[in-house]
Amino acid sequence: MSLNSLPRVVALGGGHGLSASLTALRRITDRLTAVVTVADDGGSSGRLRDEFNILPPGDLRMALAALCSDDHVGRTWANVLQSRFTGEGSLAGHAIGNLLIAGLWQQFDDPVEGLDMVGDLLRTRGRVLPMSSIPLEIEADVVGLDPFAPDEVCTLSGQATVAKSRAIVQGVRLVPSAPPARAEAVEAIAQADSVVLGPGSWFTSVIPHLLVPDLAKAILETKAQRVLVLNVAPAEETDGFSASRHIELLAEHAPGLRLDVVIADRRFADTDRYLESYVASLGGRLVRADVALRGGAALHDTNRLASIFSEVITG
Amino acid sequence: MSLNSLPRVVALGGGHGLSASLTALRRITDRLTAVVTVADDGGSSGRLRDEFNILPPGDLRMALAALCSDDHVGRTWANVLQSRFTGEGSLAGHAIGNLLIAGLWQQFDDPVEGLDMVGDLLRTRGRVLPMSSIPLEIEADVVGLDPFAPDEVCTLSGQATVAKSRAIVQGVRLVPSAPPARAEAVEAIAQADSVVLGPGSWFTSVIPHLLVPDLAKAILETKAQRVLVLNVAPAEETDGFSASRHIELLAEHAPGLRLDVVIADRRFADTDRYLESYVASLGGRLVRADVALRGGAALHDTNRLASIFSEVITG
Repeated sequence: MSLNSLPRVVALGGGHGLSASLTALRRITDRLTAVVTVADDGGSSGRLRDEFNILPPGDLRMALAALCSDDHVGRTWANVLQSRFTGEGSLAGHAIGNLLIAGLWQQFDDPVEGLDMVGDLLRTRGRVLPMSSIPLEIEADVVGLDPFAPDEVCTLSGQATVAKSRAIVQGVRLVPSAPPARAEAVEAIAQADSVVLGPGSWFTSVIPHLLVPDLAKAILETKAQRVLVLNVAPAEETDGFSASRHIELLAEHAPGLRLDVVIADRRFADTDRYLESYVASLGGRLVRADVALRGGAALHDTNRLASIFSEVITG
Repeated sequence: MSLNSLPRVVALGGGHGLSASLTALRRITDRLTAVVTVADDGGSSGRLRDEFNILPPGDLRMALAALCSDDHVGRTWANVLQSRFTGEGSLAGHAIGNLLIAGLWQQFDDPVEGLDMVGDLLRTRGRVLPMSSIPLEIEADVVGLDPFAPDEVCTLSGQATVAKSRAIVQGVRLVPSAPPARAEAVEAIAQADSVVLGPGSWFTSVIPHLLVPDLAKAILETKAQRVLVLNVAPAEETDGFSASRHIELLAEHAPGLRLDVVIADRRFADTDRYLESYVASLGGRLVRADVALRGGAALHDTNRLASIFSEVITG
């Protein structure tokens, strides 16, 4: 297969979910663009954001690590980017890749220039872009925080807080609202053969892209195949939500959204008798497959996911 | 000229002096090994050393930056390695390259493995080695600290303190004394065609190598040409010392030392009528040349130095 016949794929998300989709996608193409949430305010990213008023680098770093090649050198550098300083001192907990990215951003006015430099240096398969040029906050409307007023709607602020909350999230907003998209991300979506949403933390990594107006518009208007990858099981943020409810939440945050393919782990899909017809109502077909990692955590098996992507995207 | 006919050169030193000799040497060969002092206790290196009990990375980082190639990518990464975090926070002042090296050292037991990884990644011309496997301290015997007892000999501790002192340094020691050399450095000196000492801070970057027993022995015993590059003018550490006195100090710290070539800036050499005969007494010939940067700081012009190295080393 010549390079130019490889599909152009844009994957949107953040954190471990995006890392899984990228790890799978880089096995089928290197014409790959990751568009990454920039709303993290916890951990190493939160500290760097506070210290330098920069985009939180953590999700971008994870995406770069996921795009490192499968050879020894690639895997070694992926591990180095992901590894963290130990101890109790001022550097403890910082991921090395976060410091490298933050350092590059001190040298270049444009954050994408720094990310491209890391990508070139590590010879990643594909490109990593932030979903917006400015650092964002996530706010969520939740119910169930106060056991004595279980129906009261409260606002939670901050991605780290929202992601860990056991309250029932009803919807999320970005602050500032309607932030600017990166033009490169809009262009990549317009030119793509496939656009992949999810898996990942639903409210803090998957839905936020749809709240950036130019990204939402690009996703709605692209001629690319729109592929949604559901989580293999609900995570903390969506505890108790059905598979259909996950998709409904996406649609609520992006009116007019159409989907072409929804990939669901067979076990999770089988708990929801309305899933297939709900997917059809958004224009899509449901692909049930065994994509969960066997045993242990509720994660995707990236080799199985690559195999499904190969069927769905490469065709 | 085929690769194998390029000379094998080992350059010993630290800081800006070593950076100058490496910048010049990488223009004439890529069979280049830098052997770098590991006694810095100031600034970013001192803080990292305190936090993680590691070799001070700063001089190693400067050497890696100096070995980056002359093309756009090489120069850009050299600048990135050397650049420092700004601001007032916990990262302020740390060089990005120091954090990258310190981070790699958290992943690998052997510090040389981490340095080789940075070198491979940045495709440096040549290899960077620490002069010892363990972090060292420098102690100096000085006179003139106390204006009321100008002949009293005092001990100053710490490279940063010694390098900045205006007292007259009489000699230096390493703590612990007789530290282990890196075997790769000993081997490189044994195999070299030329070994280059200096320029640099005389007591804290040039002499320390001669206090590592296995390095001193290797330098004394190698069949390589031994080249000494004098500073273009005395620095703070050696304020008022003649060119001959610089060489004498080296000989005092390494009994039996022979030199084949001493490169001195013409203007500095001309202030010392005994220099030529003193160099001859150590077995060497004096090469006077205009190697100083024109105007401003007392630094080497690395292009002029490369030209002299080309004559002396490539022949």
